[in-house]
Amino acid sequence: MDLNDLARSSGEWLKGTGPESDIVMSSRIRLARNLSQFPFLSRADDGVRAEIERMMRRHLQELELKGHLNYVDVNALEGLDRQFLVERQLISRELAESHGSRGVGISAQENLSLMVNEEDHLRIQVFQSGFNLERCWEEINRVDDLLEERVSYAFSEQLGYLTACPTNVGTGIRVSVLLHLPALVATREAQKVFHALQKIHLTVRGLYGEGSQAMGDFYQISNQVTLGKSEAQLLKNLRDVIPNILEYERRVRNQLIKENRPAIHDKVARAYGTLRSAQAISSEETMQLLSHVRMGVNLGLIDDLDIPIVNELFIQTQPAHLQKLRKSHLESAERNSARAAYLRERLARN
Amino acid sequence: MDLNDLARSSGEWLKGTGPESDIVMSSRIRLARNLSQFPFLSRADDGVRAEIERMMRRHLQELELKGHLNYVDVNALEGLDRQFLVERQLISRELAESHGSRGVGISAQENLSLMVNEEDHLRIQVFQSGFNLERCWEEINRVDDLLEERVSYAFSEQLGYLTACPTNVGTGIRVSVLLHLPALVATREAQKVFHALQKIHLTVRGLYGEGSQAMGDFYQISNQVTLGKSEAQLLKNLRDVIPNILEYERRVRNQLIKENRPAIHDKVARAYGTLRSAQAISSEETMQLLSHVRMGVNLGLIDDLDIPIVNELFIQTQPAHLQKLRKSHLESAERNSARAAYLRERLARN
Repeated sequence: MDLNDLARSSGEWLKGTGPESDIVMSSRIRLARNLSQFPFLSRADDGVRAEIERMMRRHLQELELKGHLNYVDVNALEGLDRQFLVERQLISRELAESHGSRGVGISAQENLSLMVNEEDHLRIQVFQSGFNLERCWEEINRVDDLLEERVSYAFSEQLGYLTACPTNVGTGIRVSVLLHLPALVATREAQKVFHALQKIHLTVRGLYGEGSQAMGDFYQISNQVTLGKSEAQLLKNLRDVIPNILEYERRVRNQLIKENRPAIHDKVARAYGTLRSAQAISSEETMQLLSHVRMGVNLGLIDDLDIPIVNELFIQTQPAHLQKLRKSHLESAERNSARAAYLRERLARN
Repeated sequence: MDLNDLARSSGEWLKGTGPESDIVMSSRIRLARNLSQFPFLSRADDGVRAEIERMMRRHLQELELKGHLNYVDVNALEGLDRQFLVERQLISRELAESHGSRGVGISAQENLSLMVNEEDHLRIQVFQSGFNLERCWEEINRVDDLLEERVSYAFSEQLGYLTACPTNVGTGIRVSVLLHLPALVATREAQKVFHALQKIHLTVRGLYGEGSQAMGDFYQISNQVTLGKSEAQLLKNLRDVIPNILEYERRVRNQLIKENRPAIHDKVARAYGTLRSAQAISSEETMQLLSHVRMGVNLGLIDDLDIPIVNELFIQTQPAHLQKLRKSHLESAERNSARAAYLRERLARN
């Protein structure tokens, strides 16, 4: 698998073409699984880690999936490539930054990622564009079943799936949706929403998961609890709540437009203009301006740009992607200049 | 004379095509003159003012100039038209805002303006594009001589020309150049320069003269003293000093480019991008961004725009010009939107 080829596109699930894709960037489900015959990784020495990795690699490569699965030896990657996979959300920061034998299996469309030796022996992730948790659930269930035919998971009749961290014990599931909430952020309504979500045991994180800053007005909403409720219940919980947030974001967008269309249009148009003109631009500013532009396209204030391009740019302007695209190692100032050049190129009118 | 027709262009002298026009926007000389048979305006009642205006209007209309002289009855103009003439620098704010009989004679190319009943009975002004004080002096001398054949100026053998304000007594001359100093302003060197100029009795003002704010990094440098020195000496004084300021501004520009070309290029490109994208923009922001763009064109950082267009936009985006161009009275918010639309139209790539 040539990571350089990947850089020119973004994962199918980031195209933003699914249901409710004006606000829901993507849906994701991940399962935490461990093999019964090995200790958890915190108690595994290098030899055991290597053995788990070899075994899981073989199983993954032999798995009968619809498409081809690419296995990447993360330990053998250089830092830039690991960061690249993090930016694409195919591996977690934790997997990128840890040591020793570890890897990831990635499907051709990037809708499926199987991390080996992250916090648990195996983390299965399935992505879908837009608000499509059911599809994620079907897919991940199928993959989980295929794996269970081959390996014996650490499982307790009383507790359910056993995991390295107690917060994942039980179902081992995390159901999450990535939302773009520029209007709620701009009107400072977002904090109210997040506070309400916490009360019903949902977690709010930034684009790159736990501890990451919210950038570009993107927020991941996911379940906090994995124990004591069935997967179906946890799924339903999120599926029921999200539409309220979508309606709220849309209502505030329409209200903003109704009350001050010229000011919103101006903000959006200036953001678009700056992205097409700047000669140097940071990742943070790019995310913020792309966020305005994304809302502008959805509100019909920009008519010569498609959402999939905007979504791609969120990913492709990240530091590692930029260096992959430019095929060279770039310092921060060089990246700001390369990022601006790339944005001008992609957003040129003709 | 239809002021609406004027709005679509700017005076010949604002085209920025003369010597040193990367920095020197224009050169200007004005003479303050009073008629010997009438009291100064501060002591003239409405009847006397009217008599002076009638007499001067007739003389101006009969003056044998190269081109046609348009006489405008400023008292009969509505506020918008008066402001329009101020924005074009053809009349002073004082003439626009005072009351009673008053007017202005304007040459076809707008290189000559003769204000009647401003602070003095007559103010003769001659403009040239770029650094061209000699040409101004030749022109204004010729007009002054033509007038002196017809009227008797208030003149004292001991003091020279007598004027309403003692600061103008003697030669009644004000020699000034309008400079664009973005690099000196950006590096905070401008204040040093201005301090040095004051020591040699030169005055620094904003774009619209006395008391006006410096906008768009434009500064008018002119003589403070009119008494005790000949016109030739005052002219020479300014002609000798200005080249030093030009050299300083150019040196700082080159230094900025040498030390931080990417940052300068970025500032210039963003300014250009914002002017071509904004949906609402104030006059102040427009001036500031046009200033960056003007420097960018002069430094070769923008290659699809000509200086005369930038110079025109400084004038045409002023409130009264904008309303003339749009042929309607516009409130502040409407103007900001109309200004942005006009800038987009004029700066569109195709």
